[in-house]
Amino acid sequence: MAHRLRSNNGADLRQQAVDQSPAMGFRALPAQGMSQGLHPLTDVTANTRLNDYESSVKHAFDHIVPVLKQIASERCEPDFVVRAQTIARAELGFELPAQILEESWIGGLDMRRLFAACVFETYHRLSDRFFTADPLAGRDGEAFERFLLDCGFHLMDVTPCADGRLAHAISYVLRLPYGRVRRKSYAGSLFDIENTVEKWVETELLRFREGRPNTADEPTRYLKVVMYHGSSVDPAHQGCAAHGSDDAKAASEGLERLKAFRQAIENSFCCGASVDLLLVGLDTDTDAIRIHVPDADGYCDLEHWLDAGKVYEITRNLSPAQARQRIEELVRAHAPSQHASAALTEGMVRLIAGLIENNISQIDYVRQYHGGCYADIGHAERFIGAGIGFEEIQLRNLTYFAYLSTVEEGAKDLDVGIKIFTGLNINRGLPAPVIVRYDYHGGVPGARERAVEHCERIAAALKARYPQLCADGMLHCLRAVRDCDAAAPIEIVGSSLQPVASAGH
Amino acid sequence: MAHRLRSNNGADLRQQAVDQSPAMGFRALPAQGMSQGLHPLTDVTANTRLNDYESSVKHAFDHIVPVLKQIASERCEPDFVVRAQTIARAELGFELPAQILEESWIGGLDMRRLFAACVFETYHRLSDRFFTADPLAGRDGEAFERFLLDCGFHLMDVTPCADGRLAHAISYVLRLPYGRVRRKSYAGSLFDIENTVEKWVETELLRFREGRPNTADEPTRYLKVVMYHGSSVDPAHQGCAAHGSDDAKAASEGLERLKAFRQAIENSFCCGASVDLLLVGLDTDTDAIRIHVPDADGYCDLEHWLDAGKVYEITRNLSPAQARQRIEELVRAHAPSQHASAALTEGMVRLIAGLIENNISQIDYVRQYHGGCYADIGHAERFIGAGIGFEEIQLRNLTYFAYLSTVEEGAKDLDVGIKIFTGLNINRGLPAPVIVRYDYHGGVPGARERAVEHCERIAAALKARYPQLCADGMLHCLRAVRDCDAAAPIEIVGSSLQPVASAGH
Repeated sequence: MAHRLRSNNGADLRQQAVDQSPAMGFRALPAQGMSQGLHPLTDVTANTRLNDYESSVKHAFDHIVPVLKQIASERCEPDFVVRAQTIARAELGFELPAQILEESWIGGLDMRRLFAACVFETYHRLSDRFFTADPLAGRDGEAFERFLLDCGFHLMDVTPCADGRLAHAISYVLRLPYGRVRRKSYAGSLFDIENTVEKWVETELLRFREGRPNTADEPTRYLKVVMYHGSSVDPAHQGCAAHGSDDAKAASEGLERLKAFRQAIENSFCCGASVDLLLVGLDTDTDAIRIHVPDADGYCDLEHWLDAGKVYEITRNLSPAQARQRIEELVRAHAPSQHASAALTEGMVRLIAGLIENNISQIDYVRQYHGGCYADIGHAERFIGAGIGFEEIQLRNLTYFAYLSTVEEGAKDLDVGIKIFTGLNINRGLPAPVIVRYDYHGGVPGARERAVEHCERIAAALKARYPQLCADGMLHCLRAVRDCDAAAPIEIVGSSLQPVASAGH
Repeated sequence: MAHRLRSNNGADLRQQAVDQSPAMGFRALPAQGMSQGLHPLTDVTANTRLNDYESSVKHAFDHIVPVLKQIASERCEPDFVVRAQTIARAELGFELPAQILEESWIGGLDMRRLFAACVFETYHRLSDRFFTADPLAGRDGEAFERFLLDCGFHLMDVTPCADGRLAHAISYVLRLPYGRVRRKSYAGSLFDIENTVEKWVETELLRFREGRPNTADEPTRYLKVVMYHGSSVDPAHQGCAAHGSDDAKAASEGLERLKAFRQAIENSFCCGASVDLLLVGLDTDTDAIRIHVPDADGYCDLEHWLDAGKVYEITRNLSPAQARQRIEELVRAHAPSQHASAALTEGMVRLIAGLIENNISQIDYVRQYHGGCYADIGHAERFIGAGIGFEEIQLRNLTYFAYLSTVEEGAKDLDVGIKIFTGLNINRGLPAPVIVRYDYHGGVPGARERAVEHCERIAAALKARYPQLCADGMLHCLRAVRDCDAAAPIEIVGSSLQPVASAGH
């Protein structure tokens, strides 16, 4: 663990370093917020870039319905197919499936299949762009990794809630490079302990065998972070569904899970095996985080936290250097002190200060582009993602996630997703688009074939669970796999939109 | 890796050691077979003990139907309940569920529920005896572990086919201590590569962190063994169902899977990470094994093997020391030689020789107690075991295994099991007894609760898959969990036999 420094003049001792560099130490550009009435630490350039990406992706999805309406208005024209494709190319950037258009003279234009086809194509293009062009510039992040190691952590493993309103937690809310942070979302942030122990084992083995990211004799630790959420605008209804919109319950069950994970590691492995823990809350209306500052034993107070929104107010009129210093003081001041507890480590102070500084940019992002509070405080996802993968989904309210290996285990989450999409789509006559995804390790022989089989099995189980929706064309399913070792794009392996003749045999 | 010794006089060099001790080096008693017309290397004492155990357990199951017939014949007596319990206590050693007996005046005696209750109770008693008394004396096996390390292997991980006719592979066929061998059965011996990679990772980490069973700098390897099977009596029908009773296919797909596992390790980890492989076949009629002797690169010949039955004949008139020497010579003679292949390691020679010597005892076991060939060459299982666990099942043809985490993934294996039990039980009016089991690591907080939930979920999915059988009382399900860290007995957590009133709400 990084050396501990608890004296009150710790900040003074480190003044010079603080003046020189932003907290996370991995930003390309200095903060420029103040000149535009924003916070002095806000990274305006990043905000512009992030907003360009978010608006372009969301526009692509939200433009589908208006364009399809326009196409529908042309359906009585003799050259309908040509007109439709011309509009689609111009407005959406791709052609519609010819077969659906050509069959329209028989049973009318199947707008539901067209809609699903457009959602799937738009997703496919978003995904390809992500894996080929890295538009969020989050794949490398070596500087972040060095910073993290400096703080005393060799892996940061974050579990946000699977709620679509937290899908941007890594790339936007915390401004971390997605390629260097393990993100594993679960409903209610209640991560799978056994799976996380496996990841810990793998992480430690790589340190021992290959010295990645550092050798096992370095006194760093695996840092497990839980991010729960609530709504400041409508706390009783727009909080975490898995915890009945009860923030306190979400926080306390998140902490329970964290402690259970640490206990699992300590009980299962000897020689001082342990992990560090961090509990973070998110206001999904403003994207301001709150951090339950822990002591070195991982103890934190459920009822006290450091609120990034308040830090923003306290530091908004300071210089960047003063603001950084004040943030670190605030972190120290929020450490649990009522207990005979071990001192907060200096590394943890730097990490938390860095997370808060990064989050200040996001608070300004929401102020700049969403009037300080999102208009879509509730669900507004564009599709359901079911399976294992979806690294490319880094945008808020784009995807309802049901991370699952089987429908049998994930049925509850899927039912919630279908309920949400009943409100969003089905009740207005549009199908729920489901993307079934299974990532695999290409270095393992046969893994791709097994991933494809897994996709087929999940899709079949979905059909068995929602037979009426499928029969009515109100649930469509795209199947995709990806070699996550190869940094490759996804591979589409099937779809419920395929013509029955070719799909059936 | 243990040092290699390929010279033809290797046997002479090691003569003295061979004379002094049996190949495996962990037997308590010397071989005594010759005096009784058995093979000189046969462990007669062990055979007696193993037969006592097998007969007593199988008798307990096979005695249920005659006893229930006897009880049924008393059902018109006024003191029926008392008589039934007296018979049950005397003949089965336990009382029948009072409620089933007491309800008999209303709808008649529900013999199907009684039968299932007796199977479940008999299983429970067998399981308790196994975990408390260790009747096969297989829990420790430190001597075997030392032997294995000496041979150059720090873990022996065996995948027999999940077929009930291989459930005794470890404790009987190979005579290894079950507590020191990883057994992970799969249909067709086609083990899960991803799961095995995880086990490899965990094994290597324990060597690095805790020096268990040896430190990571020792040049030993993880040994993965596949045991496929065939039938010498009725090869076209009683072979491996998963491979259409085609021995050659079973062997070649087993070897493919082994090679894929090694490839997965070599591709996923650097620094010379690899594993050793061994392909073994079993004749389920005689319990004689065949070993496809590999070279140091793991290359082996699918069409040539060393047959323990032939070794038995070749060595039956020798002294134990001569026999051991001859076995090692035979192992060397069966190494692949047509290739520019790396020499068979001396450690692998010793291990294979040990396995063959142990198997000779089992060949004699089948001669002594089953006339050289089992009467039940086909399926004769007493119940279906579904889930994760069942370490206590070490007897042939006692259990049809469907190792699974969800019915969704294991549906194919379950369907085969139900088909088998349609022939064995349902067609003669008796239900198929299914034991749903989920083992957990007690050191992980909440693991027990999750295991119980998992059991409930599998049982519910079973009911959804076979609704008619369940409604007709032709499929009954016991649910049990076990803390596999604690060497504790199983814990029964529910059953379809429970009265509806208490189970329903």
